[in-house]
Amino acid sequence: MFSGAQISLYPMTGDFVGVITRALAALDPHRDRLRIETDDISTLIIGTPDVVFAAMRDLFAAAASSGEHCVLHATISRGCPGEPDDPICQTPELTGPMAPLDERKARAHQAVKDAAVIGQEAAAQFSLYTLGIDGHMDEIYGCIDFLKNSGVFEKSKNFCTKLRGDTGAVFSTVHEALVRFGPPAGHVTIDLTVSANSPSKR
Amino acid sequence: MFSGAQISLYPMTGDFVGVITRALAALDPHRDRLRIETDDISTLIIGTPDVVFAAMRDLFAAAASSGEHCVLHATISRGCPGEPDDPICQTPELTGPMAPLDERKARAHQAVKDAAVIGQEAAAQFSLYTLGIDGHMDEIYGCIDFLKNSGVFEKSKNFCTKLRGDTGAVFSTVHEALVRFGPPAGHVTIDLTVSANSPSKR
Repeated sequence: MFSGAQISLYPMTGDFVGVITRALAALDPHRDRLRIETDDISTLIIGTPDVVFAAMRDLFAAAASSGEHCVLHATISRGCPGEPDDPICQTPELTGPMAPLDERKARAHQAVKDAAVIGQEAAAQFSLYTLGIDGHMDEIYGCIDFLKNSGVFEKSKNFCTKLRGDTGAVFSTVHEALVRFGPPAGHVTIDLTVSANSPSKR
Repeated sequence: MFSGAQISLYPMTGDFVGVITRALAALDPHRDRLRIETDDISTLIIGTPDVVFAAMRDLFAAAASSGEHCVLHATISRGCPGEPDDPICQTPELTGPMAPLDERKARAHQAVKDAAVIGQEAAAQFSLYTLGIDGHMDEIYGCIDFLKNSGVFEKSKNFCTKLRGDTGAVFSTVHEALVRFGPPAGHVTIDLTVSANSPSKR
């Protein structure tokens, strides 16, 4: 298994470099379980999905606590057949046979219920892509059904689903979408946008 | 067929609202061929892929001409089985049988060669997802081969491919990736990030 994300942080302020630099300290508790590489468009974080999502959540919350309008975007992937297996990504969660959809939805709900409360409101939208399987829309519709009952569902949009709530519950919900839908060892990706402090109307 | 994109523009300046507002005029020549809806995370533009890409290109170039570090993100989709057919999206390009890969690559190269020169440098990265088909990686590898010879290829990254060049050629290349790979009536999506004026090193 290979899993991780290409992430970018966009603080809408002339001091965007300062906001990003100060937020980076939030990655420190996660660094020993991640491989990290940066260029001028994004930062690659490779690790198990739970660590990758905790790192994104803490980075986003740190940037948002500046009070500036901040957006985090992530291109998230697990199980891409074009990537090599990596020991830093090994997780028992993504092995074994695929459980029935209802069982997976129940586990996803429990995980979101148990999510840490961060105390920062986040709006988010994301698209889930389950690749290389027949009937990919069945998994996507199963996921959308989970999202509608996740407690952070805001609305369905064309091409994506929109969430709003505490940063902890929002990132936990997207994490569950990645690991519970599509086959355990399958190729699943997410296109995620999370926003805080927007002056725009909903 | 239903096709379009959820797009967001991120100017890294305290005057982000001003930069966005002034850039919106660039959409005017395209408005009569698009359906547009906006909320606090993104703007939906629905239309044929050629119009959607021309609109994104012109919006990005207008924002980037401010000189500020600006990023455009787009979640692009065509042929999603969960969306209704829409007359505004009808295009002869996305009907008929799937041509051989080499023929599609040749057409893609010709289109990029003919792309308008915009005079604004852009760095970009994107992921192509061909859904609901067996052997999805064959289409993705075919696309990557096209990208490597597109004239705007910068490097392969985990989960995506990075481009750099004139805004016209960059958007034309991503447009060709969307319409030439995967079956003509198939479900294909792209997660696209385009950046200008970044102070970060490559």
